[in-house]
Amino acid sequence: MTTATAPSAASLTKPASFNLPGLSPGRLYNFSAGPSCLPEEVIKQAQEDIWNIMGSGVGIIEHSHRAKVYDKVLAEAEADCRKVANIPSNYKVLFLTGGATSQNFMIPMNLLSASETADYLTTGYWAEKSAEHAKMFGTIHEAWDGRATKHTFCPADAEITYSAKPSYVHMCSNNTIYGTQWRNADGTTRLPNVPSGVPLINDMSSDIFSRPIDVTKFGMIYAGAQKNIGVAGTTLVIIREDLLTRKPTDKHGAPRDIPLMLQYAVQAKDESRHNTPPVFPIYMCGLMFKWILKQGGLDTMHKRNMEKAKFIYDVLDSSTFYKGHARNDSRSLMNLTFRCAPPGKDAKACEELDNKFLKEAQAAGMDQMKGHRSTGGIRASTYNAFPKEGCKALADFMREFEKKNG
Amino acid sequence: MTTATAPSAASLTKPASFNLPGLSPGRLYNFSAGPSCLPEEVIKQAQEDIWNIMGSGVGIIEHSHRAKVYDKVLAEAEADCRKVANIPSNYKVLFLTGGATSQNFMIPMNLLSASETADYLTTGYWAEKSAEHAKMFGTIHEAWDGRATKHTFCPADAEITYSAKPSYVHMCSNNTIYGTQWRNADGTTRLPNVPSGVPLINDMSSDIFSRPIDVTKFGMIYAGAQKNIGVAGTTLVIIREDLLTRKPTDKHGAPRDIPLMLQYAVQAKDESRHNTPPVFPIYMCGLMFKWILKQGGLDTMHKRNMEKAKFIYDVLDSSTFYKGHARNDSRSLMNLTFRCAPPGKDAKACEELDNKFLKEAQAAGMDQMKGHRSTGGIRASTYNAFPKEGCKALADFMREFEKKNG
Repeated sequence: MTTATAPSAASLTKPASFNLPGLSPGRLYNFSAGPSCLPEEVIKQAQEDIWNIMGSGVGIIEHSHRAKVYDKVLAEAEADCRKVANIPSNYKVLFLTGGATSQNFMIPMNLLSASETADYLTTGYWAEKSAEHAKMFGTIHEAWDGRATKHTFCPADAEITYSAKPSYVHMCSNNTIYGTQWRNADGTTRLPNVPSGVPLINDMSSDIFSRPIDVTKFGMIYAGAQKNIGVAGTTLVIIREDLLTRKPTDKHGAPRDIPLMLQYAVQAKDESRHNTPPVFPIYMCGLMFKWILKQGGLDTMHKRNMEKAKFIYDVLDSSTFYKGHARNDSRSLMNLTFRCAPPGKDAKACEELDNKFLKEAQAAGMDQMKGHRSTGGIRASTYNAFPKEGCKALADFMREFEKKNG
Repeated sequence: MTTATAPSAASLTKPASFNLPGLSPGRLYNFSAGPSCLPEEVIKQAQEDIWNIMGSGVGIIEHSHRAKVYDKVLAEAEADCRKVANIPSNYKVLFLTGGATSQNFMIPMNLLSASETADYLTTGYWAEKSAEHAKMFGTIHEAWDGRATKHTFCPADAEITYSAKPSYVHMCSNNTIYGTQWRNADGTTRLPNVPSGVPLINDMSSDIFSRPIDVTKFGMIYAGAQKNIGVAGTTLVIIREDLLTRKPTDKHGAPRDIPLMLQYAVQAKDESRHNTPPVFPIYMCGLMFKWILKQGGLDTMHKRNMEKAKFIYDVLDSSTFYKGHARNDSRSLMNLTFRCAPPGKDAKACEELDNKFLKEAQAAGMDQMKGHRSTGGIRASTYNAFPKEGCKALADFMREFEKKNG
């Protein structure tokens, strides 16, 4: 960290004069892939509650995690989460730490013996990481590997080859960096047809609660909160109770030693309070669940997210100037990835157009659209809280930019 | 968590009519042991910044952790942390997750081979936990065990028996639950005289940056942020670089497998951004470091904390009604623990007095003073941000309560 240089305040300050449809004056369209934008009414509630929550005379971030106020915050966050996704009672709802990345090792650590095989569907950058991190704990079989096809789509069942007896199957339903999603034509969830009785585990970090979900199809679901359901600092884990009883063994055949903090069973027993939990991030999840319910739940989220994405995909479909990364049948409703690639331009010229696009979009109040460092290009992330007006504005901007530069 | 019941809003709501010295109207003296009270000016800054930070048009909790705004927040948090404690350049400053409790396993996992011994100075509840959690990774020798003397003091050097060649020595400089602290008569830090060349590791969760510190005396320092330097959700780790190169072996003599997220060396290389970090808790640490510097640094913190504690210890010293838990030479400046124990009253009567005390204190605007569930009694936590006026108010209340009930 000693090498990090603080940018000057001047380089960060943007004109505060924006007055953009769907936002309060001074706020920008924030297309960040995560952490990402929040509903303004949720931020306003947090502003009040960090000063004095429920008239308690103390802010939410100052209350003990054993105090009644936090009891209420946590109980409501869980209850509202269950309501949002209709989670059956044989699933535990946990709020953990360490990001979704920590699930990459906690899953095999808790669920896979060294002598066993787990199957991974490698559909993107984070799915690659999940498979890599798991190798320390057992045999990892990539039942699908999208590297050769540049992670442009999510595979059909016929393209997947499971191992003989996988301990579980791991998937990632939305691939943030490549902008692909497991979906049907109408945007609803498409799932791989895993072998009977094998638990399916889904990394939903970038599409959790963005569309209806049938929790019973999964052994476990997890998601970093900072995209669709809150802020960075907590990871939602929804896990079927029977998975809590697995007793994995290590490479010597002995019961694997797992620190208490890293055992799902301990976190479930202690109701996400084995130690001091990340109070503010969990509180924010609670606010987001209430917000989702108030909007009309996951059906409304899905409808809105379809409409939002359509603005931009319609431009791609009617343009030879832009090139989308995802194959049409796997287009993500959350992360819309594309490049400027007009016919006849070489790679360097296209990259220069991308940069020009990003700079001019920024000047028009459209923030944080640069593609991931591993892929480049342009990425518009339009999670639950992102306003429809911002998607329309981007589509208009794209058409205008094409006209000027095509 | 399904068993947790949400308390009714009514049971949480307290009259908002308090107007207490040292606080804004409506806010209470919050004696919570952690998460705990914050300076009002810090909360006000956070209220602004979660809406729109640095004129960026986006709130701090909505910015990407790779965006320039967070670059600046993180770089300043580290730089200010180094300034507060005069941290030499051969120490890394890390902001991790999972609470101080996760350090209980990360320390031995990274620093102790299964064939080696580490020494633990067991001075309280959390020190007991640290020793217990470490046993999975090597031999743990309790060089001091305060259980028999009910954790009423921190031992003198003559009372400590180190093992022949400890891999490190672990201590906890302030014991939150029992209210004891490693200190000299003037409140400055007293440290155990560990064998030459052996790294001393200090859990400073409840007294970090509450008084001057000589970082060079330690191999590693760590602290959950939620008491003296911020909110729950991040753990500050200050670690000497040579410790990052240890390559511990497991019980079969093979290099121990450690997930990337749990390796100090990886977190140091990736500057606390191996994955999405807990942005808000780290941002809050940054604000607290700036606040400490603005107040005059650790000398000022120490002077204030001494003055604050004196109000209450003076009452204990002049009373036969109250009984402090800590031996005088080990009294904590952070957590002041005592009971009502007037002569001639039995245990049950004393406990009833404690409960009456807590109830009446609450009604007078003094919140969250109930002792830890493992010990009972009364505990006033008076961390950096707790106002002096609140300590005076408690001392006055104690005298009054004694007069009425003595």
